[in-house]
Amino acid sequence: MATAPLPASPPVQQTLSRVVADDVPALAAGAAIFGTGGGGAVYTAQRIVERALLQHGPVELIGVDELTEDDAVIMMSGIGAPTVGIEMLSSSAQAETLLRESEQVAGRRITALMPAEIGGSNGVSPIGWAARLGVKILDADGMGRAFPEATMISPNVAGVPCDFSIQCDVVGNVTIRKTIDLAWLERHARAGAVASGGICLGAHYLLTAETAPGAVIPGTVSRATRVGHALLSSPDPVSAMADELGASVLVTGKITDVARRTEGGFVRGSVTIAGTGDDRGRLQRIELQNENLVVLEDGEVLVTVPDLVTIVDAETGHAISTEMLRFGQRVSVLAWACDPLWRTERGLQLAGPRAFGYDLPYVPFERKSSR
Amino acid sequence: MATAPLPASPPVQQTLSRVVADDVPALAAGAAIFGTGGGGAVYTAQRIVERALLQHGPVELIGVDELTEDDAVIMMSGIGAPTVGIEMLSSSAQAETLLRESEQVAGRRITALMPAEIGGSNGVSPIGWAARLGVKILDADGMGRAFPEATMISPNVAGVPCDFSIQCDVVGNVTIRKTIDLAWLERHARAGAVASGGICLGAHYLLTAETAPGAVIPGTVSRATRVGHALLSSPDPVSAMADELGASVLVTGKITDVARRTEGGFVRGSVTIAGTGDDRGRLQRIELQNENLVVLEDGEVLVTVPDLVTIVDAETGHAISTEMLRFGQRVSVLAWACDPLWRTERGLQLAGPRAFGYDLPYVPFERKSSR
Repeated sequence: MATAPLPASPPVQQTLSRVVADDVPALAAGAAIFGTGGGGAVYTAQRIVERALLQHGPVELIGVDELTEDDAVIMMSGIGAPTVGIEMLSSSAQAETLLRESEQVAGRRITALMPAEIGGSNGVSPIGWAARLGVKILDADGMGRAFPEATMISPNVAGVPCDFSIQCDVVGNVTIRKTIDLAWLERHARAGAVASGGICLGAHYLLTAETAPGAVIPGTVSRATRVGHALLSSPDPVSAMADELGASVLVTGKITDVARRTEGGFVRGSVTIAGTGDDRGRLQRIELQNENLVVLEDGEVLVTVPDLVTIVDAETGHAISTEMLRFGQRVSVLAWACDPLWRTERGLQLAGPRAFGYDLPYVPFERKSSR
Repeated sequence: MATAPLPASPPVQQTLSRVVADDVPALAAGAAIFGTGGGGAVYTAQRIVERALLQHGPVELIGVDELTEDDAVIMMSGIGAPTVGIEMLSSSAQAETLLRESEQVAGRRITALMPAEIGGSNGVSPIGWAARLGVKILDADGMGRAFPEATMISPNVAGVPCDFSIQCDVVGNVTIRKTIDLAWLERHARAGAVASGGICLGAHYLLTAETAPGAVIPGTVSRATRVGHALLSSPDPVSAMADELGASVLVTGKITDVARRTEGGFVRGSVTIAGTGDDRGRLQRIELQNENLVVLEDGEVLVTVPDLVTIVDAETGHAISTEMLRFGQRVSVLAWACDPLWRTERGLQLAGPRAFGYDLPYVPFERKSSR
């Protein structure tokens, strides 16, 4: 097992100050890596965002510490089944409606958007909306990865109440919600997305210079773009990404079994990988629910949520999402530490192994893999 | 067939100027009659409203022509499955939340409530909410009866756009909707009610002295109370109600067959009534979907929606709702003319026989029954 030295948090890295069309392939490839198997396919979003940036020019990317008292930020994301989004494209009017309604509810100008999750298409699309709307992008997100439910979001870990929730669908219906907690919001927003035909656009949480620090995962737009650049520009993309992420390559091998079913609106199951080359004779199983959740080897747990696990093509380094896994693929498994926010008591309560039904304690994976 | 002379609209009648606890049994019995088989059981609502009026005092009832420029009226109703409402009672906080949110969205004080439908429990409950909240009740409703869907409402016939929709559930979740039309509102509000556990409270349409006339069915709270008084105080309740309503007694007899199934969230089916006494030898079939929709005899259509058909106990005169119909009941069938608004082109498009899937032309029933 090629184990890199693992910091608990990634070191401070250079951040982008704006996003141009040429950055989008890297951002999209990186967002897919942070999708940890879920988060929705990035290709359509990538093309839409490239076009928006060419048409409207670059988007200014600002850091959490650059927010001023004039700034108001909304978290945006698609809500619903990503598979529906492939056929039912969103309209550029949706983001406009959402911004207008948000400003009306907030009673102030919205100056920036941020992705609710950096993983998958939801990490890419907000750049295009910001370009069209002429607002900034906050270099941060609400997960530092992809998660399947609305409760699993950093302001909820930080205890910021969600009294700001607006959804807009492709025909123009708008819904404003004030729910008593995030679990009720998830339930109602999901029902609203289904009533809208399966998918809609949402703005959640109104954050400011005062409330954003500590309630968002900082630097993730830049970080996803750097990871994508490493992937696209290196002759050894898997190692280059592992270095950039501070990740371990848990195994490299061949997929020998995929047990996968769609139930309750989720993809669930497991995938088995038999080591090849230096890893010959090793066997790992990864349990999944939309995202990759738990990695096991010889009856031992190597990694669990909220730490990140992504299965990538062993040659190209591109992420393979859970619904695209199939027998015979040559893959590498990358694992790396989640943001420290998810390792707090509240973070683990919302997104630790028990939140997904696994009766397992959470052990930071670098402690396991460095034994 | 005992056919009374039938005016196209009911004559102007004395209206109440307030509702006291002693009026509630009559209002509830009358609302059940206007339920035309649907609208939900009135008993629980009756007890809650009686208690509210005893505790908070009478409610002022004002006519549509008494509205001043200071008045703002919201239409209120339960949304969802009435059967759920029997077990999951609403909270008095719900109506308060709804009023507070309505005032915030409207940017003005709400001075009065009105029932969205006078038929069934939705015709009774608003009186109790008004008593608790210290506001007036508009002597009007949005249907003049009960209908199963949100699109079948008088302001929609009159072309008033529904840009005001607020729902609140029993735990305190609030949803504000701006849908592009009533069909989308029905779809989203229904999904929201299900996400809330099956039922919630809604405020729809903000009406004023300017917009209410012509967009509501006037006088229906008073009228339902008068009908209930006739029912409760006469030795011959069926005749007394027929006189009060300007209704025909289509047949009096015995239920010989009930074909009823629950599908797609509706009660559907038909009931067969064999005449007794003077009506011996006659056979009528009534088709139903929550409400009574069409009456047939010898292959001929006697009545269709939007005209009103209610099956009552032949002795007591109390309405029998579609889910309570059973073999052997002694019943009379009352039918009377709907409000002229429903006989307009738009009214029939929304709530005529074709809107319920019957390939039948609408013929005002008094023209048929007076042949």
